[in-house]
Amino acid sequence: MPIIIAVDIGGTQIRVATFRRGSTQPVEVRRTPTRSNDGTPFERLCTAISAVWPKSEPVETIVVASPGPLDPQTGMIFFAPNIAGWDNFPLRDKLQERFGVPTRIGNDANLAALGEWHLGAGRGHHHLLYMTISTGIGGGVISHDRLLEGVHGLATEVGHVTVLPDGPLCGCGQRGHLEALASGPAIARYVQEQLAVGASSSLAGRHSLSARDVSAAAAGGDPLAVEALARAGDFIGRAVAELLHLFNPSIVIFGGGVSFSGPLLLDPVKKSLEKHVMDPSYLQDLQIEQAVLGDDAGLLGALSLALLSTP
Amino acid sequence: MPIIIAVDIGGTQIRVATFRRGSTQPVEVRRTPTRSNDGTPFERLCTAISAVWPKSEPVETIVVASPGPLDPQTGMIFFAPNIAGWDNFPLRDKLQERFGVPTRIGNDANLAALGEWHLGAGRGHHHLLYMTISTGIGGGVISHDRLLEGVHGLATEVGHVTVLPDGPLCGCGQRGHLEALASGPAIARYVQEQLAVGASSSLAGRHSLSARDVSAAAAGGDPLAVEALARAGDFIGRAVAELLHLFNPSIVIFGGGVSFSGPLLLDPVKKSLEKHVMDPSYLQDLQIEQAVLGDDAGLLGALSLALLSTP
Repeated sequence: MPIIIAVDIGGTQIRVATFRRGSTQPVEVRRTPTRSNDGTPFERLCTAISAVWPKSEPVETIVVASPGPLDPQTGMIFFAPNIAGWDNFPLRDKLQERFGVPTRIGNDANLAALGEWHLGAGRGHHHLLYMTISTGIGGGVISHDRLLEGVHGLATEVGHVTVLPDGPLCGCGQRGHLEALASGPAIARYVQEQLAVGASSSLAGRHSLSARDVSAAAAGGDPLAVEALARAGDFIGRAVAELLHLFNPSIVIFGGGVSFSGPLLLDPVKKSLEKHVMDPSYLQDLQIEQAVLGDDAGLLGALSLALLSTP
Repeated sequence: MPIIIAVDIGGTQIRVATFRRGSTQPVEVRRTPTRSNDGTPFERLCTAISAVWPKSEPVETIVVASPGPLDPQTGMIFFAPNIAGWDNFPLRDKLQERFGVPTRIGNDANLAALGEWHLGAGRGHHHLLYMTISTGIGGGVISHDRLLEGVHGLATEVGHVTVLPDGPLCGCGQRGHLEALASGPAIARYVQEQLAVGASSSLAGRHSLSARDVSAAAAGGDPLAVEALARAGDFIGRAVAELLHLFNPSIVIFGGGVSFSGPLLLDPVKKSLEKHVMDPSYLQDLQIEQAVLGDDAGLLGALSLALLSTP
């Protein structure tokens, strides 16, 4: 039976896994650091692919989930802040030349949306919005049973909806985007700012602080931590309301570490959503769910890309 | 040759036209007022359809462009502020029962987008954003050669992108939406507010004021009118930047009366777009065009819906 090789390029590690059609359990998985002095990232990726290459079965396709921005049509990585030498890097063609099998690449957050739709929490829906909230905020949209990509693969940048014009600077250079107000680092930064102006909290006096710490403190009832998550949830609700008006999905799926704060984050999201939708019909029958693919979202998203293509 | 009957339901008049496949020139057109004491709107619509019904040729389909919100899948009008009795009105089924031919309905702004894509300024593009700026602001999106509708046909409410949180009240009940800041009435209202606080302008002292008056005064060099259009253009640019991040189209088409202000509006739109896109790649090769279908957008959009369906 032909083998699918799925690759997930993360900020710290590259994972390569082999799958047989019909199974979401990998046959073999190989990991390699994204950054290392041991050869180029592309060489390490190729070594990992060779290591899992099946001895007797043919390889049908290679599919890669990579951080954007990238063009899934041309297979070109526009730039990769964490990977030296991958600016305007023709990753798809390079892999195709090297291994001689059809290869496709996709934006990791887009493919996670595809994975949740095909294999995860969004099965059976025709219109889906996926948002992952961690170090950054990304996502993807399924519309009429198709991943929405846009002309150069740059669509559905759901972390860059403006929720506070002239607000804090976003990593992209603009101001007031959702990512600048509700990502993990943004939540931690808000708590630190409040501590600096004298807010009382069990988190006071720490040298470093992450969204995970805020989440844990909130679970323990710390009022500042609870407020920080509620504030982030309010902004997320504003952005999602806007996305409902534009995509009208039947399900919204939240992934990423921050979304595991549970009701402390999601209840304020829902309250904000109800307040900011222009008509209750956008919420009628709308499912709001947690992602189920977890850390495997990129890998299973890439697998879905292969499974949904003509075999 | 079978005949297509296209209907455009506007705020003041209903237009019904017959077309032969292959031609965008109507064989016959009939108009009837949307509001009148002469029977119900549905009865007047049916009378107009009967009046254009061909004597010898068969009718293939009836297609209707109607103000939203409506569900193109179920053929139900959710509500129609200008048409008495059309709340939760099953327009498609009623027409189908009455005339016995396959009938489809669509949101007029969505269908105008479809029309500009199939017959107008957007031919040949696979990813298109259409925005019509007049009494309200509406639009539509073509993504991967398909009109984006969402699960209940409520997607692409491009006039309800928030550009100024807690800004002026929008017709939908929310605040700071593009429609509340850059539609024709919003532009006229801004000028009136500035006149009320003593701004000098050739428009001072008028009893009533429309966006058309502002546009004419701006063309004549009136500084307040020029500023009012530039302000609206800035908000439109902010909203369109957001829509580029979400849909990544290769063309943006502006329709509606306000867009005919020309460079006095569109130059500020472009300047604002350049300022607010998160990456110049969103503007690379992006075409920005005026709509070409004009008042016929609804009718030719409905025709396109028929032409793009299986004959």
